[in-house]
Amino acid sequence: MASTDSEISVTDVAKAAKSAFEASQLLSADVRKLALEKIAARLESSKAAILAANGEDMEAAQVEVDAGRLSNALLKRLDLSRGDKWDAMVKGVWDVANLPDPTGIVTYATELDDDLELYRVTCPIGVLLIIFEARPEVVVNIAALAIKSGNAAILKGGKESTRTTLLLSRVISEGLAQTTLPSTYIQSVQTRAEVSALLALDQYIDLVIPRGGNSLVRNIQNSTRIPVMGHADGLCHVYLDESADPEKAVRIVLDSKVDYPSACNAAETLIVHMSLLHTVWPKVAKALLDADVRLLCDSHTLATLHTSQFPQEKLESHVSVASESSYDIEHLDLKLSVIALPSLHSAIQFINAHSSHHTDSIVTESQEAATTFCRGVDSAGTFINASTRFADGFRYGFGTEVGISTGRIHARGPVGLEGLVIYKYMMRSKADKGHVVGEFGVGKGKRSYKHAPIKTTTVPF
Amino acid sequence: MASTDSEISVTDVAKAAKSAFEASQLLSADVRKLALEKIAARLESSKAAILAANGEDMEAAQVEVDAGRLSNALLKRLDLSRGDKWDAMVKGVWDVANLPDPTGIVTYATELDDDLELYRVTCPIGVLLIIFEARPEVVVNIAALAIKSGNAAILKGGKESTRTTLLLSRVISEGLAQTTLPSTYIQSVQTRAEVSALLALDQYIDLVIPRGGNSLVRNIQNSTRIPVMGHADGLCHVYLDESADPEKAVRIVLDSKVDYPSACNAAETLIVHMSLLHTVWPKVAKALLDADVRLLCDSHTLATLHTSQFPQEKLESHVSVASESSYDIEHLDLKLSVIALPSLHSAIQFINAHSSHHTDSIVTESQEAATTFCRGVDSAGTFINASTRFADGFRYGFGTEVGISTGRIHARGPVGLEGLVIYKYMMRSKADKGHVVGEFGVGKGKRSYKHAPIKTTTVPF
Repeated sequence: MASTDSEISVTDVAKAAKSAFEASQLLSADVRKLALEKIAARLESSKAAILAANGEDMEAAQVEVDAGRLSNALLKRLDLSRGDKWDAMVKGVWDVANLPDPTGIVTYATELDDDLELYRVTCPIGVLLIIFEARPEVVVNIAALAIKSGNAAILKGGKESTRTTLLLSRVISEGLAQTTLPSTYIQSVQTRAEVSALLALDQYIDLVIPRGGNSLVRNIQNSTRIPVMGHADGLCHVYLDESADPEKAVRIVLDSKVDYPSACNAAETLIVHMSLLHTVWPKVAKALLDADVRLLCDSHTLATLHTSQFPQEKLESHVSVASESSYDIEHLDLKLSVIALPSLHSAIQFINAHSSHHTDSIVTESQEAATTFCRGVDSAGTFINASTRFADGFRYGFGTEVGISTGRIHARGPVGLEGLVIYKYMMRSKADKGHVVGEFGVGKGKRSYKHAPIKTTTVPF
Repeated sequence: MASTDSEISVTDVAKAAKSAFEASQLLSADVRKLALEKIAARLESSKAAILAANGEDMEAAQVEVDAGRLSNALLKRLDLSRGDKWDAMVKGVWDVANLPDPTGIVTYATELDDDLELYRVTCPIGVLLIIFEARPEVVVNIAALAIKSGNAAILKGGKESTRTTLLLSRVISEGLAQTTLPSTYIQSVQTRAEVSALLALDQYIDLVIPRGGNSLVRNIQNSTRIPVMGHADGLCHVYLDESADPEKAVRIVLDSKVDYPSACNAAETLIVHMSLLHTVWPKVAKALLDADVRLLCDSHTLATLHTSQFPQEKLESHVSVASESSYDIEHLDLKLSVIALPSLHSAIQFINAHSSHHTDSIVTESQEAATTFCRGVDSAGTFINASTRFADGFRYGFGTEVGISTGRIHARGPVGLEGLVIYKYMMRSKADKGHVVGEFGVGKGKRSYKHAPIKTTTVPF
């Protein structure tokens, strides 16, 4: 009986979200901006209560950590009072409020005939179902992005942050209630069973955004007809080309690996051109070993290390032989898989076979090699002499980020507000008799299409 | 054993498609244009053989029609020598060849720092799996679109057109073989079992495009992790607003319904504002009845007809009472469901509840009503005083059409070549030491992001 009850209630949640979305379409973008300002203010005035709830979540999680059932890393991600997290969260809402409105922008306009105008106009997608893991501030980030872009959203956070996210969701609803937007514009659910039930409701939910690991994304893709915008693994490569500058090689490999090893845009595999085995590779290896990076090497790169001047104990503690599967692992740690390959083309093929199509970088002084790499590597980001860590919505200039998509539909790479909109076509006839298709065609008295571009970025009606 | 064999062979097909796609990324757009020209020429020189094969398909289909197992409509769609179908098909290849290249276009470019440039560049999606029904010319249309946009494709046609599509596919491969593009760039499979096996290969196939009815689309969405760009039902509405001009009302309703009733952009439901029941509605009804359209009416619109001057036998043969389900049916025939509603807002709500979100039109003289309708109706096309039949890629000015998407992700409404591309980000550092993220941030000596727009539509490397 419980499951039926929950099914009924999530159907109500989904219906309410759809209705809220539809109602919001007739409101102006100013209302959405106002809602974000109200939410930011309310977060500030509810800070003590939210941090108290977060403290309770932390205490409960500490018990799990002590019992070895939860990682310390997750505990840290849960903590909303850590560093400048709280301030960054609230500032994020203000920042999103002040970003340009991504909706209502005309991206194609043409006159089909005298007095018959067509406009392609950006608009929200509809109802988003967003599933994320531990970090409670994501509720606020994502709600802000959804509201700004005019989408209704249903949120499901990690179970460890239940008390915090419940309170954050309430504050968001209270902020919405101070505007003409429906308070059901942003809703949240608590259980996996509710998520499962929601994934079946493709008549109400238009897009699922899972923010988590590969397995979360694939599980969801397997169990819904609703489109999924997944941020899956980041298995990024750096390729040191024949003509790589040694200093650039050292700097870029090091930054790509050690700047933030658990990020999805960190490098996991280094490809070294065979010709660099005794020149650039030992320099890069030294920098990596000095930075405490463990190396999983193929026979070529390994042999060089053993003939170089590295301390034996360092080699023993930090260098091991790569297996075939080493090149398919997202280490997310101070570990790097290394392989030597004989050519740029073999490097491109290797990357296309092993990369998660997130971001891959070449270090080269050859313009031709750079061009070939950028075109041949089939990833969301292909970089020349730059760290893979640059793959990020803020760094790209989007102000904020929904996630990083490794899919190839709708949005690819770091996804900003633009990733949360689609478009619709609006057509207007101003002719005395309106416009009908039957008047167009081949033959006497038939009209033909004019297709004269209209220069505008806004809909004139 | 057969199924295992077929599984192995489709995996080979999918792998070959992925390899062909990757290899093609290093070739210029000119090669793809050349391939289309070679294919068009080869179609012309193989015309007799192809029409002979089509004749055999037609004969076999005629047997099925005679036995009552196949519709006459399908038989007609199969016929490649009907009217100007052949010439239109070949001309279509030339037209697509001459369209602007949809790839390689920079849609966002910014300088992140001195000498650090970011470009978002349109590029093909990858490998497409395209499933369509009877019409054999679709093989050629779709192959042309895939090649033009730089995507590899695997095609599956309807079983009734097997002989024709097999020959068309061979001609396409022969055309490709005259260029440096791999001949496996476009492949075809014949059976449903092969399609099922392909739907599991999300590591090789990037997008599924089913061109067929709702049930085909939903079946596919239910059985794959691969994104699906579905063209589902077209349940389009015309709404006659309080201020509708009678002549526009008659013309637009008539054209929307009778110009091509089996098209997805034909109207299936007419909504009449209550205030028009005794003024505009009888005029519109007369025009529809004169055009042999059968009407499924609610009690209000029905009552008016019975008090108007319509011949009793016409009412008996052509008018019946609508049931609740009448408003969820895509008639695809000379039938129209009709309902009277009391307001613009109730009409918008009715459309959002019953429409397939394809195209809906308002007939009105009120600017305010038009604006409200266009924003409030959540469909790919919202039209003012224009027939729903205008919803079409050619009419919109895209030159050609992949299909019409009722989804809200990636592409919505009529999909041109733009719907077959995505983008990737290319980043280039020209700095002496390359660029690393560690140098950016807050604090002494740290750099900050510049985000200075670069004005260009092409990648400078």
